[in-house]
Amino acid sequence: MSRTLLCLFAVAAMPVLAQPAAPIVSPEVSPDHRVTFRFKAPNAQAVMLSREGAQPLAMRKDDKGVWSVTTEALEPDLYGYSFVADGVSMLDPNNPGIKPNLIGPQSVVHVPGPLSLPWEVNDVPHGTIHHQFYKSGVVGDQRDYYVYTPPGYDAKAKKPYPTFYLLHGFSDDASGWTAVGRAHVILDNLIAQGKAKPMVVVMTLGYGAPEIVTGGWTGVRDPSIGKRNRDKYRDALFAEVMPAVEKDYRVSKDRTQRAIAGLSMGGAESLFTGLNALERFAYVGAFSAGGGDHDYSAEYPNLDAKANTQLKLLWIACGTEDRLIDPNRKFIEWLKSKDIHVTAVETPGAHTWMVWRRNLAVFAPMLFQ
Amino acid sequence: MSRTLLCLFAVAAMPVLAQPAAPIVSPEVSPDHRVTFRFKAPNAQAVMLSREGAQPLAMRKDDKGVWSVTTEALEPDLYGYSFVADGVSMLDPNNPGIKPNLIGPQSVVHVPGPLSLPWEVNDVPHGTIHHQFYKSGVVGDQRDYYVYTPPGYDAKAKKPYPTFYLLHGFSDDASGWTAVGRAHVILDNLIAQGKAKPMVVVMTLGYGAPEIVTGGWTGVRDPSIGKRNRDKYRDALFAEVMPAVEKDYRVSKDRTQRAIAGLSMGGAESLFTGLNALERFAYVGAFSAGGGDHDYSAEYPNLDAKANTQLKLLWIACGTEDRLIDPNRKFIEWLKSKDIHVTAVETPGAHTWMVWRRNLAVFAPMLFQ
Repeated sequence: MSRTLLCLFAVAAMPVLAQPAAPIVSPEVSPDHRVTFRFKAPNAQAVMLSREGAQPLAMRKDDKGVWSVTTEALEPDLYGYSFVADGVSMLDPNNPGIKPNLIGPQSVVHVPGPLSLPWEVNDVPHGTIHHQFYKSGVVGDQRDYYVYTPPGYDAKAKKPYPTFYLLHGFSDDASGWTAVGRAHVILDNLIAQGKAKPMVVVMTLGYGAPEIVTGGWTGVRDPSIGKRNRDKYRDALFAEVMPAVEKDYRVSKDRTQRAIAGLSMGGAESLFTGLNALERFAYVGAFSAGGGDHDYSAEYPNLDAKANTQLKLLWIACGTEDRLIDPNRKFIEWLKSKDIHVTAVETPGAHTWMVWRRNLAVFAPMLFQ
Repeated sequence: MSRTLLCLFAVAAMPVLAQPAAPIVSPEVSPDHRVTFRFKAPNAQAVMLSREGAQPLAMRKDDKGVWSVTTEALEPDLYGYSFVADGVSMLDPNNPGIKPNLIGPQSVVHVPGPLSLPWEVNDVPHGTIHHQFYKSGVVGDQRDYYVYTPPGYDAKAKKPYPTFYLLHGFSDDASGWTAVGRAHVILDNLIAQGKAKPMVVVMTLGYGAPEIVTGGWTGVRDPSIGKRNRDKYRDALFAEVMPAVEKDYRVSKDRTQRAIAGLSMGGAESLFTGLNALERFAYVGAFSAGGGDHDYSAEYPNLDAKANTQLKLLWIACGTEDRLIDPNRKFIEWLKSKDIHVTAVETPGAHTWMVWRRNLAVFAPMLFQ
């Protein structure tokens, strides 16, 4: 083996000007689950660690210009984070783990835990994630969705599989539930343990009106865009995604074999889409739902106690530290005032993926039983 | 629609401490294809733009602490880039487009061009990307690979599909050829134009010895790791990936219906794997290959002119501005000295994805014809 050739190879492949090696280790997870974050910015005046679900932590600079902070012991999980250097949110240049997002991508640190945690990869059979592409006539763009098929999925199975439509939140893309939420790992584990039925999970792109996200945080504050987003999302789902899934995969068209749930904006979309189409869905869920219309009678004009005969499960969860807990409680009160059966769940936690991964791990086992 | 609820929603979903809106636009592509990059770092002393395949450009700071630079008109393409602020390579905080990489992720800017460019998304039928997960007994880890099936792929097709094994380079992960190389878009376009045969493309994880990459740039400089990496890569391909693909997909096991090619480290792996197993592959390709053993007689002990009866195509390409052009020329000379037919291609360009996307668009149409 020629050392010269290898060096040439390394030099050819290295990005211009970047440091030749990576002497800075970040993040560093200690055996006791404390995490040290490091960020080289010799001339910055102030650097903070912004971690998902936590108060920001000030970092301190050493004499080499490396800012660092060590957290207390963290509960095993995956945490999004960024460094805020002189007011600008930066990814960790020494961490290849990235949480995709259309507005604010972050770095991710994995604090490993016991294999019994739903999102830890176990030595069990794995399902497959299929990335589908199509041109939407409803929205007028090229778009995508992801389909999880369970381990051992059989396209010729005698009994068709049930289907779970699982929606991401505002600023995520269609990869959110797999890339960040680890939905495929969670389903693999639950299915291997016999806790969840083998099911097909369809992870759509949640933007019926793409302008809700293309302008950053402005579109989501415009009520007319929000309304159009929900309407067009539903229209594309019914006219395009569901027919394609039901053609391409061995799935049931029976309403008792269909579920819809989502997080945050996707929770509002799931409630709006599902509760207005009980002829299509028997299971409806919302995790930290937000962004829906507050005028419930206008949003759900035909919803009343008759729904109880159709709904096998209406499951609405929110973290008690989430600012959306109050609107969620209000919506649950309204449902109860209409005598609609609802499973209302309050968990610890804020508006974070740590809450939503746990929501999925609790919700999926209740489906199609 | 309640404005209050929407605001709550927006606040709940916003990362802590990040700027509430994104007043900085970066990158900004002008109609004449010049690109302006902007990066806020009020206290940095020097910021450079490091763009794939280009010399670094100094950026200038304005009175608001925003550094910027505008390039000359760029050829339509996708370009990786980062900002080097006081010596540290940073992603663009205002660009959600990210090029995944295990050592140095970068931001990506798309300079759009005519739809005739191979990597532009056209209104044509699209194939599907399948993400597969498995535990490797050969390597001893949980790993993944991607499989592209062409538009209209039929699992029960009378005639099985040919299979193209397509390998990424050092520091990429298994998603490299789709996330950065847009292999699925290129294949969709070539197939729609009738230029390429409908084929299944398998994009493996190229690390037979994961320690080649887990330590940054050190592992790749150790010849024993490089050798083990190639050996174990081949072993896992033959014992695990190929049997799984040939069980799960409607593909041919005929050697004339199998191709293998890759870029950089993956080019060296393709040559090593393919040219030592002509009973399995009839098409072998290498794009900017690097990192293989310079002792060709040791690397290919059984290779001689008899290979010409088995090889339908041996295609070795490199950019003339790539530092690997000399070793590639030397290897081609050696092949010629052994009377082995080789198509040697020199193109403009350096060690970049701009070269490799074009390589793929030229190579794929020659397969299985």
